[in-house]
Amino acid sequence: MATLGDIGLAAAINILSAVAFLLAFAILRLQPFNDRVYFPKWYLKGLRSSPSHVGAFVHKFVNLDFRSYLRFLNWMPAALQMPEPELIDHAGLDSAVYLRIYLIGLKIFVPITFLAFTILVPVNWTNRTLELELSKSNVTFSDIDKLSISNIPEGSERFWTHLVMAYAFTFWTCYMLLKEYEIVASMRLHFLASENRRPDQFTVLVRNVPPDPDESVSELVEHFFLVNHPDHFLTHQVVYNANKLAKMIEEKKKLQNWLDYNQLKHTRNPSKKPTMKTGFLGLWGERVDAIDYYTSKIDELSKEIEAERESVRSNPKSIMPAAFVSFKTRWGAAVCAQTQQSRNPTLWLTEWAPEPRDVYWKNLAIPFVSLTVRRLIVAVAFFFLTFFFMIPIAFVQSLANIEGIEKSAPFLKSIIEVKFIKSFIQGFLPGIALKIFLIFLPTILMIMSKFEGFTSLSSLERRSASRYYLFQLVNVFLGSIITGTAFEQLNSFIHQSANEVPKTIGVAIPMKATFFITYIMVDGWAGIAGEILRVKPLIIYHLKNFFLVKTEKDREEAMDPGSLGFNTGEPQIQLYFLLGLVYAVVTPILLPFIVVFFGLAYLVFRHQIINVYNQEYESAAAFWPDVHGRIITALIISQLLLMGLLSTKRAAQSTPLLIALPVLTIWFHRFCKSRYEPAFIRYPLQEAMMKDTLERAREPNLNLKGYLQNAYVHPVFKGEDEDSDAFTEELQKESVLVPTKRQSRRNTPLPSKYSGSSSPSLHEVVQEQP
Amino acid sequence: MATLGDIGLAAAINILSAVAFLLAFAILRLQPFNDRVYFPKWYLKGLRSSPSHVGAFVHKFVNLDFRSYLRFLNWMPAALQMPEPELIDHAGLDSAVYLRIYLIGLKIFVPITFLAFTILVPVNWTNRTLELELSKSNVTFSDIDKLSISNIPEGSERFWTHLVMAYAFTFWTCYMLLKEYEIVASMRLHFLASENRRPDQFTVLVRNVPPDPDESVSELVEHFFLVNHPDHFLTHQVVYNANKLAKMIEEKKKLQNWLDYNQLKHTRNPSKKPTMKTGFLGLWGERVDAIDYYTSKIDELSKEIEAERESVRSNPKSIMPAAFVSFKTRWGAAVCAQTQQSRNPTLWLTEWAPEPRDVYWKNLAIPFVSLTVRRLIVAVAFFFLTFFFMIPIAFVQSLANIEGIEKSAPFLKSIIEVKFIKSFIQGFLPGIALKIFLIFLPTILMIMSKFEGFTSLSSLERRSASRYYLFQLVNVFLGSIITGTAFEQLNSFIHQSANEVPKTIGVAIPMKATFFITYIMVDGWAGIAGEILRVKPLIIYHLKNFFLVKTEKDREEAMDPGSLGFNTGEPQIQLYFLLGLVYAVVTPILLPFIVVFFGLAYLVFRHQIINVYNQEYESAAAFWPDVHGRIITALIISQLLLMGLLSTKRAAQSTPLLIALPVLTIWFHRFCKSRYEPAFIRYPLQEAMMKDTLERAREPNLNLKGYLQNAYVHPVFKGEDEDSDAFTEELQKESVLVPTKRQSRRNTPLPSKYSGSSSPSLHEVVQEQP
Repeated sequence: MATLGDIGLAAAINILSAVAFLLAFAILRLQPFNDRVYFPKWYLKGLRSSPSHVGAFVHKFVNLDFRSYLRFLNWMPAALQMPEPELIDHAGLDSAVYLRIYLIGLKIFVPITFLAFTILVPVNWTNRTLELELSKSNVTFSDIDKLSISNIPEGSERFWTHLVMAYAFTFWTCYMLLKEYEIVASMRLHFLASENRRPDQFTVLVRNVPPDPDESVSELVEHFFLVNHPDHFLTHQVVYNANKLAKMIEEKKKLQNWLDYNQLKHTRNPSKKPTMKTGFLGLWGERVDAIDYYTSKIDELSKEIEAERESVRSNPKSIMPAAFVSFKTRWGAAVCAQTQQSRNPTLWLTEWAPEPRDVYWKNLAIPFVSLTVRRLIVAVAFFFLTFFFMIPIAFVQSLANIEGIEKSAPFLKSIIEVKFIKSFIQGFLPGIALKIFLIFLPTILMIMSKFEGFTSLSSLERRSASRYYLFQLVNVFLGSIITGTAFEQLNSFIHQSANEVPKTIGVAIPMKATFFITYIMVDGWAGIAGEILRVKPLIIYHLKNFFLVKTEKDREEAMDPGSLGFNTGEPQIQLYFLLGLVYAVVTPILLPFIVVFFGLAYLVFRHQIINVYNQEYESAAAFWPDVHGRIITALIISQLLLMGLLSTKRAAQSTPLLIALPVLTIWFHRFCKSRYEPAFIRYPLQEAMMKDTLERAREPNLNLKGYLQNAYVHPVFKGEDEDSDAFTEELQKESVLVPTKRQSRRNTPLPSKYSGSSSPSLHEVVQEQP
Repeated sequence: MATLGDIGLAAAINILSAVAFLLAFAILRLQPFNDRVYFPKWYLKGLRSSPSHVGAFVHKFVNLDFRSYLRFLNWMPAALQMPEPELIDHAGLDSAVYLRIYLIGLKIFVPITFLAFTILVPVNWTNRTLELELSKSNVTFSDIDKLSISNIPEGSERFWTHLVMAYAFTFWTCYMLLKEYEIVASMRLHFLASENRRPDQFTVLVRNVPPDPDESVSELVEHFFLVNHPDHFLTHQVVYNANKLAKMIEEKKKLQNWLDYNQLKHTRNPSKKPTMKTGFLGLWGERVDAIDYYTSKIDELSKEIEAERESVRSNPKSIMPAAFVSFKTRWGAAVCAQTQQSRNPTLWLTEWAPEPRDVYWKNLAIPFVSLTVRRLIVAVAFFFLTFFFMIPIAFVQSLANIEGIEKSAPFLKSIIEVKFIKSFIQGFLPGIALKIFLIFLPTILMIMSKFEGFTSLSSLERRSASRYYLFQLVNVFLGSIITGTAFEQLNSFIHQSANEVPKTIGVAIPMKATFFITYIMVDGWAGIAGEILRVKPLIIYHLKNFFLVKTEKDREEAMDPGSLGFNTGEPQIQLYFLLGLVYAVVTPILLPFIVVFFGLAYLVFRHQIINVYNQEYESAAAFWPDVHGRIITALIISQLLLMGLLSTKRAAQSTPLLIALPVLTIWFHRFCKSRYEPAFIRYPLQEAMMKDTLERAREPNLNLKGYLQNAYVHPVFKGEDEDSDAFTEELQKESVLVPTKRQSRRNTPLPSKYSGSSSPSLHEVVQEQP
């Protein structure tokens, strides 16, 4: 086991590497040619332009002002300077609230650390259990263990301190969570209230429009809402199935890139015409002139795109049974989004429309039954992914050994047999399958979420984050504490009694403290410091800049500001909450490491959010209930494990008191849920009415219909070329009221203004009842 | 263990007692003087009046037409004759759907029984395991066991039959449940659609109206809804805290009864003036003239009631922060009930108003935080009630023994020492505490639900039913299978591993089959046959008729038609579903007993619903999701237990196939929930709009305001005497629009039509954000 000295050494190494990253960052960010890598947000906002051309040529690439290097940490105060309201304005509420996750980490753990060090550490330290045990047997112990709960003798009265501390920590965490939920909820409501007019405030996404033999989807939607929301319905837009078209446009863009690359090559070296091979990856096939080849390819594709666009436009089958329905007022939209429309609750499903840029277009047309089946499939698949992912990896590992390679590729034998290479491969190969899997895990989880049928990017990310958290909980947290694969753990837990499980884990916890301290330093400290360097975007930007960029606009596109990546980032933070809460009572020495992580991460991400990231969408902090729920989960896990640990320490009298903790915590969670969660799901009518009235007073002559008409056009139809304008015009024409052609009145049982049909008698309704 | 012969004997005894009950019923119900006991529903409907006075005096009391006795079972076909739509019309949807619970029992179990007897019984019977075991050891077995799964040798291939049957039974049950859910949901929607105009269709119950220093609750409600539902708000009624008044009126009624009794006594025996003692229960105190005493008491109380009514009327503190808000259209009410009103989701809580007679007035004013705390308290209390109820009972039992009685009451010693009495007490006393507890259990559960704060009688009954079901599941089902108190079971389950629990229970199941068969016959057959006799109402009616009844109206009041008692009846049925599903694969011989129960109960309750019960409220089958959920629970329990049982039979290869069953069943439940449950919670706007339009067309000049004005007046103010009319008039006056007196605009941030205040700037909203 590690001593304090070992930990100190590891800390020194990690601090040094973190400082090295920060230094590298400090130097790189000051070079003007890196400016677009480290400050893309400002470029996107139009507040910064390429370095001025005044002065020496070299100044465009290298910063020669040595004084600026001396202040290499001055980005830190700068990152803290921007006040929160300005930050919300600058980067959106999502980013600002994301930072609050780190902040709540500090708020929870700084007082807990203080309390633990003034009370728990002395209580643990002033025992001699471990020394006594040492004298009896050959058990080794470290200084870390002397500070932990392991140093308390069995059945000691001192466990009362830990019990009281567990209550204190729980109380403090809950109090902070409550405060924070309140703040975030009111921030969200305020953000929604003070926002400018946005199409999604007036719009509701309607799914599962039932098929109708007499009317098109568009007519059906219009008549349904004219009948059922007569005073509020304004307009609607049908959803086209343009997935194929989107793919083709993507393809065209890629070809255009290659064309640009070759043209640039030609300009730089006009003597030689660039050529290429047409086969797979340009490895074989006929050698042709690259510029001609790509030009002709692009022309061909453009024509196909035209044809496809035409077919999407004209083919009624490409209209999906979904629509964006807009209302005259926010009140009308709020009502429609929150109520059930039709007698059959699986038809005419309404929900708030996501922002236009947040829509995940592919999933808009999945019918209800398919959704529930998909949910079952994904749940089962995720279960197997979590508990059995080691099986295929072990299989790949068994294949990818030295002998296997030698057998399948005998010509490599001589190289492999070199001792250095052999040992490298032997050390490297078994891990690579696992590493590749872990790198692709977020993508796999995202594909699962997409398959499940969520309709907005934000909800996709939220669902992936939940899954990623569960995966980490099982495979990183439990997997590190108890050796063996997740499946072996599951198997042993099933065969253990319910009160045995927390004991097994609880007992192992103090022993793993040093491991987790190292983990925090490597993953938390150095990892976060590495994040600010942005190595990957740095390299890619310079490659693109060199090979593709011709105009200022190209350079703009070559920037990859990235975004926060909620689906991977948030579960990572949650792991620290879990570690902190679990070890707070058991091994308080771990806490300062957590605090440093939260502090550093807060700084780094605040800087990145201000200067780098560009959020793809704005969900107005819709993820907070998830964050809150997971911290509560961590709290409950920590309480159960403490209960297990104490019950092995012959401190059984504490069990009833400890059982009360999770019960109270769950109750607290339910209270918070009912108190604050509605603010993240529903939109109060009072707010809607207030905004409506304000708007009516300020802009009495607003042409809302014009404003909303094309807000939810599929991105491939938007601003592509003049064709799309014609198309949207056509759309506009289409949405001028169409007299109904229906004969049956199955779906609009009320006299529509346009059909003039008489109202149906109750007779029809009676017939429906079997 | 019981043999088939023993079971046959028990069956004969129970069939005989059931037949005896039915015979007694057949004779009693034909006597005219019992007519009001056995046919009260028809009296209440006004379709039947007291037996005619034509003919001999004796005919008024005794039916002398002997032919009618011969047809003593003819109530059975009569009970089946009324078609379901007429039944809904006659007794309401609740009752009709309640009968469908028995019907679905038949639908599920008749085919299952048939299948089990053609396939499972031969498969079980044609083994010789038990006989072999018998020859080896001294194990006894019964014929019942020969028909059960116990007769299959360990590791036999024949278990595949049971596996396939488990799938078949699950599939059939789910299919029936799906069909039934669909039917009940459409019955409910049709019922709501075809119903006459009812106040609750237009009305929403608003709770947690925030306190306001400037305005009364009534004004505040009015302004809030005028602002936020300007096109739809019609009128509102505040809720008075009249709990004390209600109690006083109850008291007055009781005194009036005593006065009537004494007056009647005096009329029958004019020579003697009735006297009474004024002390406790009339046991001691001064002897006074009873008629004078009660007359003066009633006068006194009447005055107090007047004063109290005056004070409720005038004291603003007796207005609770809740109101019934009515809208111009059903659409408006549906919108308001389904949406969130205020930024703070714990204020202005809206929900559909229950029917006026369904309202539980006492709970209307409980604030939100108190509600969540109460929920926690009740959950903890219910946990202790379920698992530890034996502790106080055991304590009482230990006190109430022969020695204890002799010590505390030595003068009884000589009586107790008589051998017969002594053995009677010793046999009787230990059980009596438990029996009393079980009799009061539904009341205790109802008090818990009331404390939890539900606002309608129907939801109170539903919640009590859930709790009663859980209690029975733990203490009757598990308690009979595994000996020991519930707490001992809980303790042993906690110390067992998760896959050990189903094994422990599963193994015990086949052995308890004969016990449950007897239980079904005693509780199910004879109990149901006893239900139709109505012994308690019969006795009470005749007592009242003799002592109190003076006029026809008194006789009307002396009838006690009773109602279905969902909170006790439904959990009882669910126990039979559980037994049937659990034993379907294990011991199919139990199934015919279940089928007979469902058939008999269906007949009896259909008769009772048609002729006797008078439902207190109509919830339009709002309980069906609970019923469905509990049958699903039973199904899952049966699958888990089968898994446990088979895993002890060395049929381990079946486990993965059996695990799929509960997963699929849970998924099926979730599918049903999302597909059908909204029909029981929300009210589709399409339906609302349809009814509104129909009504507008039929009655264009309807005075809806007048209709709704006094629909939700507290029952104590309703039709009591002319005073209340004056009061309601006053209420009417009050609800004429009142100009606002408010200075602050904290709660109505929009310009109200009446206050004329300017709209608040965003400034105020910003300030709210911390």
